[in-house]
Amino acid sequence: MIVNKRIGLMVLMRESIGTLLVLAAWDFVVVILYQLFHQEWMEIPSLPLSLIGSALALFMSVRNNTAYARWWEGRTLWGAVTNNSRSFGRQVCSILGGRKDLVRAMAAYPHALRTALGEVDASKDVERLLAPEMAARIKGWKNQPNGILVQLGLGVTEEATKLGIDGALHGQIDRILSDLANAQGGLERIQKTPLPIQYSGLPRALANIFCIVLPLSAVQTLGWITPLGSSLVGLLFVVLDKTGADLQEPFTNTPHALPMAAMATTIETDLLQSIGEPAPPPVVVSNGVQP
Amino acid sequence: MIVNKRIGLMVLMRESIGTLLVLAAWDFVVVILYQLFHQEWMEIPSLPLSLIGSALALFMSVRNNTAYARWWEGRTLWGAVTNNSRSFGRQVCSILGGRKDLVRAMAAYPHALRTALGEVDASKDVERLLAPEMAARIKGWKNQPNGILVQLGLGVTEEATKLGIDGALHGQIDRILSDLANAQGGLERIQKTPLPIQYSGLPRALANIFCIVLPLSAVQTLGWITPLGSSLVGLLFVVLDKTGADLQEPFTNTPHALPMAAMATTIETDLLQSIGEPAPPPVVVSNGVQP
Amino acid sequence: MIVNKRIGLMVLMRESIGTLLVLAAWDFVVVILYQLFHQEWMEIPSLPLSLIGSALALFMSVRNNTAYARWWEGRTLWGAVTNNSRSFGRQVCSILGGRKDLVRAMAAYPHALRTALGEVDASKDVERLLAPEMAARIKGWKNQPNGILVQLGLGVTEEATKLGIDGALHGQIDRILSDLANAQGGLERIQKTPLPIQYSGLPRALANIFCIVLPLSAVQTLGWITPLGSSLVGLLFVVLDKTGADLQEPFTNTPHALPMAAMATTIETDLLQSIGEPAPPPVVVSNGVQP
Amino acid sequence: MIVNKRIGLMVLMRESIGTLLVLAAWDFVVVILYQLFHQEWMEIPSLPLSLIGSALALFMSVRNNTAYARWWEGRTLWGAVTNNSRSFGRQVCSILGGRKDLVRAMAAYPHALRTALGEVDASKDVERLLAPEMAARIKGWKNQPNGILVQLGLGVTEEATKLGIDGALHGQIDRILSDLANAQGGLERIQKTPLPIQYSGLPRALANIFCIVLPLSAVQTLGWITPLGSSLVGLLFVVLDKTGADLQEPFTNTPHALPMAAMATTIETDLLQSIGEPAPPPVVVSNGVQP
Amino acid sequence: MIVNKRIGLMVLMRESIGTLLVLAAWDFVVVILYQLFHQEWMEIPSLPLSLIGSALALFMSVRNNTAYARWWEGRTLWGAVTNNSRSFGRQVCSILGGRKDLVRAMAAYPHALRTALGEVDASKDVERLLAPEMAARIKGWKNQPNGILVQLGLGVTEEATKLGIDGALHGQIDRILSDLANAQGGLERIQKTPLPIQYSGLPRALANIFCIVLPLSAVQTLGWITPLGSSLVGLLFVVLDKTGADLQEPFTNTPHALPMAAMATTIETDLLQSIGEPAPPPVVVSNGVQP
Repeated sequence: MIVNKRIGLMVLMRESIGTLLVLAAWDFVVVILYQLFHQEWMEIPSLPLSLIGSALALFMSVRNNTAYARWWEGRTLWGAVTNNSRSFGRQVCSILGGRKDLVRAMAAYPHALRTALGEVDASKDVERLLAPEMAARIKGWKNQPNGILVQLGLGVTEEATKLGIDGALHGQIDRILSDLANAQGGLERIQKTPLPIQYSGLPRALANIFCIVLPLSAVQTLGWITPLGSSLVGLLFVVLDKTGADLQEPFTNTPHALPMAAMATTIETDLLQSIGEPAPPPVVVSNGVQP
Repeated sequence: MIVNKRIGLMVLMRESIGTLLVLAAWDFVVVILYQLFHQEWMEIPSLPLSLIGSALALFMSVRNNTAYARWWEGRTLWGAVTNNSRSFGRQVCSILGGRKDLVRAMAAYPHALRTALGEVDASKDVERLLAPEMAARIKGWKNQPNGILVQLGLGVTEEATKLGIDGALHGQIDRILSDLANAQGGLERIQKTPLPIQYSGLPRALANIFCIVLPLSAVQTLGWITPLGSSLVGLLFVVLDKTGADLQEPFTNTPHALPMAAMATTIETDLLQSIGEPAPPPVVVSNGVQP
Repeated sequence: MIVNKRIGLMVLMRESIGTLLVLAAWDFVVVILYQLFHQEWMEIPSLPLSLIGSALALFMSVRNNTAYARWWEGRTLWGAVTNNSRSFGRQVCSILGGRKDLVRAMAAYPHALRTALGEVDASKDVERLLAPEMAARIKGWKNQPNGILVQLGLGVTEEATKLGIDGALHGQIDRILSDLANAQGGLERIQKTPLPIQYSGLPRALANIFCIVLPLSAVQTLGWITPLGSSLVGLLFVVLDKTGADLQEPFTNTPHALPMAAMATTIETDLLQSIGEPAPPPVVVSNGVQP
Repeated sequence: MIVNKRIGLMVLMRESIGTLLVLAAWDFVVVILYQLFHQEWMEIPSLPLSLIGSALALFMSVRNNTAYARWWEGRTLWGAVTNNSRSFGRQVCSILGGRKDLVRAMAAYPHALRTALGEVDASKDVERLLAPEMAARIKGWKNQPNGILVQLGLGVTEEATKLGIDGALHGQIDRILSDLANAQGGLERIQKTPLPIQYSGLPRALANIFCIVLPLSAVQTLGWITPLGSSLVGLLFVVLDKTGADLQEPFTNTPHALPMAAMATTIETDLLQSIGEPAPPPVVVSNGVQP
Repeated sequence: MIVNKRIGLMVLMRESIGTLLVLAAWDFVVVILYQLFHQEWMEIPSLPLSLIGSALALFMSVRNNTAYARWWEGRTLWGAVTNNSRSFGRQVCSILGGRKDLVRAMAAYPHALRTALGEVDASKDVERLLAPEMAARIKGWKNQPNGILVQLGLGVTEEATKLGIDGALHGQIDRILSDLANAQGGLERIQKTPLPIQYSGLPRALANIFCIVLPLSAVQTLGWITPLGSSLVGLLFVVLDKTGADLQEPFTNTPHALPMAAMATTIETDLLQSIGEPAPPPVVVSNGVQP
């Protein structure tokens, strides 16, 4: 996630420069053909342009709203993971007598989760935190984070039985594990269910058609400054589409993705401090991007 | 659900080619009548066009937002089924001593659910997983998935009584069954309550009227290139309507529906692995479409 | 609720034909006055028209979004009634030893609820299902469905005390009754709180003004085909308003209302089958409308 | 809250007549200066008008959506108060042996709440219902409704201890009190946090500027009928702003506010009937407005 | 937060005056070059302007909706902190025998939270309220508010064990602490996750480009009054952008931020009054701004 505004704008600019050059090239071709060779068949009136624009706006508005909603829901669900793992840590301290291996397993959980969701391998962090016997028991499971939750459930029951914890309190801890399962399932839902092709594929295609038609329609009135006006406007619509595309998949490895490493480290820090262990080093922001 | 972008765009193209041909034919008729036979009564000024466009945009925007919301709510409710069946699996392992028939019945549940919702028959998967005596007890029930939930409730009570499980923990497991009932009811709500006719039927009718008027209004300014401009624009509005229509019924048997087979298999895998049984083979994506 | 698309479009057409005739009559008056008697004072430029259109679009967009949201929230709350009464049925079977009178009282509940909400009297269905002594105890209560919930609460406590049910399990059943109270309260909220007058009354008034001004503004450019263009466009805006009006009150007795009889019968069927009693006959769809 | 459509439209008309007269006066000044004295410097082209209109539409659309959302959230939270006080009544009857003073205190709660939120003093209703010793104990508390909730919590604990109620059932009743605290906090949030000044203050200012510029821009094309067209359009935008302003503060003493007296009386009726006491007289609707 | 409308509008005016001057200066340069020196190359037709406007409107509409949603979600989450700390106070009084140090620690919690979120240091308020031994135990914790929650959890367990409180009631209190953890996590989510750079950075850039192009496009038709029209319109779009920017970060130290000091003091007052201690002085509104 980009956390520095100035760098962020530069990143956006760098990502768009190629598109801009292509647009400008096409605009120059159009203006030269029209102005020098007087290809009058090129004169396209503005009616289709504004109608294409309307359809584009309808698509873009649904798509970009949805893309942002996916991104923010992803962040909110990671927030739920944070909140519930903190509550689990509190409950282990206050109710289960502070069993450290369970707290450490919970600290391993977000690292297992980000490995399952994203394109990064955090299995070293999982190894570092998860007790070897737990790791052994879930080896080969397709869904590693779910495996950790099942092991946590078994550990909680074991401890609750040993300490003679009341069933209702045990149930409250189990409720937290269910809430974690809900958050995890929500994150997997976003990752496994891309935006429907109509919204993820068509806006780009429409924006491209729009950019091709644009100088043809503008050249009669704009004349020699067509490349300036047309490229600028075309770029805006391409950037609008890119904005949706950047946000609609929040668990990729791009600068626009959610900072899953930072979030997992925050969870780890809060949990380890609650059992008196040293916090891991914070995640470093490099080039304005938080991984 | 389409999971491959390139194939998805081709699917969309294939589904729209017929409409495009009809539109182009009408546009040619208009342009030939106007250009060759000078039927000047055809000249319709652009005022009604832009007003029809506005009404269309208002309808489309409510409809397409709603259609996407239905699709995504359907997916979210299936996610709730996933999450709660996982939590049920964890609870059976950690609290109920891992009774396998209950976990297998829970693995049968999503298959019964997708049979009830969609147009596919997954009763073989249900048979494969559900213990015969349970299957016998819910035979003839109108709502099979609800039948499985009732049987699960009876099984949980039986086991809880046998093991002397605390009522509060028993209540936590029952809560998961209630959450499943809530998710199931939500899915049935989407399936049984189509979008109101005003939003499911009128946008298509409006889009058709719009496409008929469009070349009449464009022919004066566009002349011979009318078919190109008019068909393109008409196609966009038809595709916009189709996008809403594709998403508003998420449990059909089209490539745009939710991948209920894949989701049910994921649930089955997670549950069977938690009791040490082999996972079923994953659902195969064919032609970019996940069933 | 209309469940047949073709019939639904015919219903919409029938409901709009009167408006269309009035619009067309006014358009003819305008065009004849203008074309034959050259009343030039009628020439109204298009500026006010497009500004009225903008204000209308803002009103309509808030109103129609809200009307649909009310309709869908009403449906969702009925869904919550369905889900929770099913869960209650499951709990009575698995925890309370299957006391039939409670399940039957729960089956009576949705019928009492639809009597309280809508314009239909389903008290016969309530009588058929509710035990006479319960009916007697809530006689004269202003809010009958709430009376049934209170009686259910008393019945559950009685049975739980008799069977020595754990308080936590008892609490889980009571939670379901609270969830039903929440859903019922939500339904009453929608019924008792109409859309604010600004959104329920003004859009129609604005649409009427728009339809009066429309031909005056269109007649200069459209000439003799004004009635065609103007009536069509006017009809669209009237239909847009009607769409909102149809959906904003979801508990009326029109074809656009929610199918409360069908939903109550579904609940009854699921509950009666869970105690081995015969299901009631399904609600008949007549003329494409589900009551 | 206005519950009669015809009267409601008249109320809106009465509230807007002043604005209309001011608008018309300004329009007449402009048209007379322009038509009689040929002040040509007044001719303002339509470009700025349509741009101001766009900015206005963006502001209005966020504001009016938000204002309605505040109004409806306020209603929904009052609904939560209704639902949870009913559930409390049911629980006192079925679990706590029907202690009447607690039910009466709960009936006093919504009256205390509407005194705290709105501009009406319902302390007589509170006095009528609340036991004097409870009233004495919360005397001087800044937040009276919260005081009642604390006293209800103490009363429930006292009774639960006396009757030897299971902790889990006690917890379920306490959960209802927490849900009431949540609803109350939400209502206070809406009351204490006005819409940001950008949305509550600027739309009116913008609408005023728009109305001043409007006739200047319209007078060239509309001529002598400027006052008719311009006043009508200006009025629409002022009414649009007024609609947002009416709804954004739902707890005032205007006809557009939520009917807090009626809602509190409904709660009182349901609660008193559940302990066999007579219901209060219903709130009278006068002049189509429900207080 | 601005609570006085008149002062608020003046604050907005003061914050915008600089921008207005820059805009007006540029407009004068353009109009003088055009009118006096007849630089005709400056004539830019309105096509690009309206297209830039469309893209701008799409960006602005997503951004401003989102910014408001962030602001309101922040307020709602602070509301959840208020509600749950009140419920905690009620539970300590009615269930835990009124242990004052726990109630005081809960009163310290919102002050610790606002220190962690915002740019203000309220550690003195925390010190004043938190028992020294608790403060000592969480010294050095990275997340102070979470530390207080963990200590509260320990205190509740200690007291519950001493008084022999039923596990289910203990669980209800623990549930309130989990709800507080959820609200806190949500607030941290908003603070740590800025709006994506595409929505926080681009609208300003686009608005600036728009303001540069605006007088070039308007000067042909507006002539000498260009600065008036163009500056006004430009200012509107800049203010629209500023509105989003003001609301998107609700925990800053500007007049537009949420009144965290006031909210924390309200919580403190309600809690201290419930244990019979004197309320702190209310937060003073100065210059119409509530801190």
